[in-house]
Amino acid sequence: MARKKLVSDVGEVPLVELARKICKSGPRVKLGPGDDAAVVETDGIYLVVTTDMLVSRTHFPPGTEAEQMGHKAVVSNLSDLAAMGADPLGLVFSIAFPRSTEIDFVKRLLKGLDKTSREYGAYVVGGDLDESDDVIIAGTAFGIAPNGKYITRSGAKPGDLVAVTGSLGAAAAGLKILLDGLKARGFKQLIKAQLEPKARVREGKLIAQSGRATSMIDITDGFAASLWLIARESGVKIVVEEDKLPIDDLTKRFAHKYGLSAKDLALFGGDDLELIFTIKREGWEKVESEIRGIGSDVTLIGEVKEGKGVYIRRGEEIEKLPDRGYRHFQ
Amino acid sequence: MARKKLVSDVGEVPLVELARKICKSGPRVKLGPGDDAAVVETDGIYLVVTTDMLVSRTHFPPGTEAEQMGHKAVVSNLSDLAAMGADPLGLVFSIAFPRSTEIDFVKRLLKGLDKTSREYGAYVVGGDLDESDDVIIAGTAFGIAPNGKYITRSGAKPGDLVAVTGSLGAAAAGLKILLDGLKARGFKQLIKAQLEPKARVREGKLIAQSGRATSMIDITDGFAASLWLIARESGVKIVVEEDKLPIDDLTKRFAHKYGLSAKDLALFGGDDLELIFTIKREGWEKVESEIRGIGSDVTLIGEVKEGKGVYIRRGEEIEKLPDRGYRHFQ
Repeated sequence: MARKKLVSDVGEVPLVELARKICKSGPRVKLGPGDDAAVVETDGIYLVVTTDMLVSRTHFPPGTEAEQMGHKAVVSNLSDLAAMGADPLGLVFSIAFPRSTEIDFVKRLLKGLDKTSREYGAYVVGGDLDESDDVIIAGTAFGIAPNGKYITRSGAKPGDLVAVTGSLGAAAAGLKILLDGLKARGFKQLIKAQLEPKARVREGKLIAQSGRATSMIDITDGFAASLWLIARESGVKIVVEEDKLPIDDLTKRFAHKYGLSAKDLALFGGDDLELIFTIKREGWEKVESEIRGIGSDVTLIGEVKEGKGVYIRRGEEIEKLPDRGYRHFQ
Repeated sequence: MARKKLVSDVGEVPLVELARKICKSGPRVKLGPGDDAAVVETDGIYLVVTTDMLVSRTHFPPGTEAEQMGHKAVVSNLSDLAAMGADPLGLVFSIAFPRSTEIDFVKRLLKGLDKTSREYGAYVVGGDLDESDDVIIAGTAFGIAPNGKYITRSGAKPGDLVAVTGSLGAAAAGLKILLDGLKARGFKQLIKAQLEPKARVREGKLIAQSGRATSMIDITDGFAASLWLIARESGVKIVVEEDKLPIDDLTKRFAHKYGLSAKDLALFGGDDLELIFTIKREGWEKVESEIRGIGSDVTLIGEVKEGKGVYIRRGEEIEKLPDRGYRHFQ
């Protein structure tokens, strides 16, 4: 008899496909499962909702403090709202702890949730506390898409430009330091990028409100993996220029010191929470200046073409970018 | 050195108190942590949001099918919306499975989520799938409070009447059958009450829209425990009449057959998902006839008084109702 298919046999993407196929849509559902967040319309308001579960064993590297777990649970959800261009309103959390967890740990985790949420003008409004063998934080963030404008992963068109906010690689470098127990001296910012990343909420709103962006995604599983999702969902080919990638400077120094490839950290490391977006040419300048206007970086890195797949160009050479990245570090 | 306090040392209520104390409120937050659901106002719309986590080991009795797990995850969340009087819009689920889970199990669970949601006019719009040792379903349901009318646990006033929808005890009797491996013949409906309970969404809306209800809660941890929550949150005394309790008929027969107390099953068993509410005297008749109008039962069971605590009256005798019930069956 054939062995039955297990969860371990398929990746995350086939599971998401399953959910997409099974969960039917309804009249008010503007966007269902499979994007960064869902969109539901009611009374002319576009509600944007996302959920993200963090399991301590696989999502929190050794040395993560309780407050940082709370922080990360908030930003990983808000980053998904950011990738839609939504304005966050609130969050709820279902959290499971082992019975042997100290109450002080619970307090610090809750403080992390509360503090980080408020930094983004959102509030923790509810929760459910349970027991499990592992610390599990399932968060849901909800917000609204101002003026009904939100950006999916599927609207990129040939001719559009491709851009990314901030810089790449620091979170992956920080993870490397923590997992391999490397010396942190001089590289504390990399650890911070891994344990206390920021969600690009204001940037996402500016991009969506421009009315010229055609697709957007946040980088959780890695830059390459995120580009692949846009390319697949939009049915286009994406070509990025290697020399334009905004690789984080400290990550370059770190990579040099340890004989690592800064480019690989930037392309295939996850957790940067930067936004990748595609935009009509005529919209780029305004969005660029608005994002710089709030003190953030944004870089033009490539172009959308007819075709399929994700490619990286180095001078005259062009090669396919592998569709890999990590979600869990285990 | 004193041993540090652990999660296992405190109950669910002190943990909720902790969350209430730590999580600060914001301008749009009408109701924060600690009620059945939270309420956030935006553009004149009252969003109602709740999250509930089910852990297979503690929330699903032996014999629960994957579809039923999905069903229960939906109704346990929708019941919390019902207890506010909200109209559900959608749900998102973060679900963790062991790696050894068969894909077929995942499919059936997702089908259960989808089917049950749609029965209530709500849709599964998003999710996150992860890995853990246990099946963990963290759901979030969101909806709106029509006309901004929602009912908390804290508004009961002396003089109000106390009522409950449907009947009591069947879910606890069903759990008993499953846990003790009793013969199901003739009692299948009790098992169904445990594994496939209904959320009183339409009833909750009628109660809230009456404008006369003063508090409401759903029965998850048991009738007595729920009454205690209303009494504590409202700062009142509640007296219920024992002979008015709508104990489920089949539960009575089951209890008789196995020498159990039907009253105990009704008072201290959980999972009935019925709504307990308090209401101004002048509002009762209309709500009663509206609820009967949609084919549901509702029973007047007692009265709110000045004072504290929950009491049960049997003829001339009156005694304090113990504040106990179960959340998990382990």
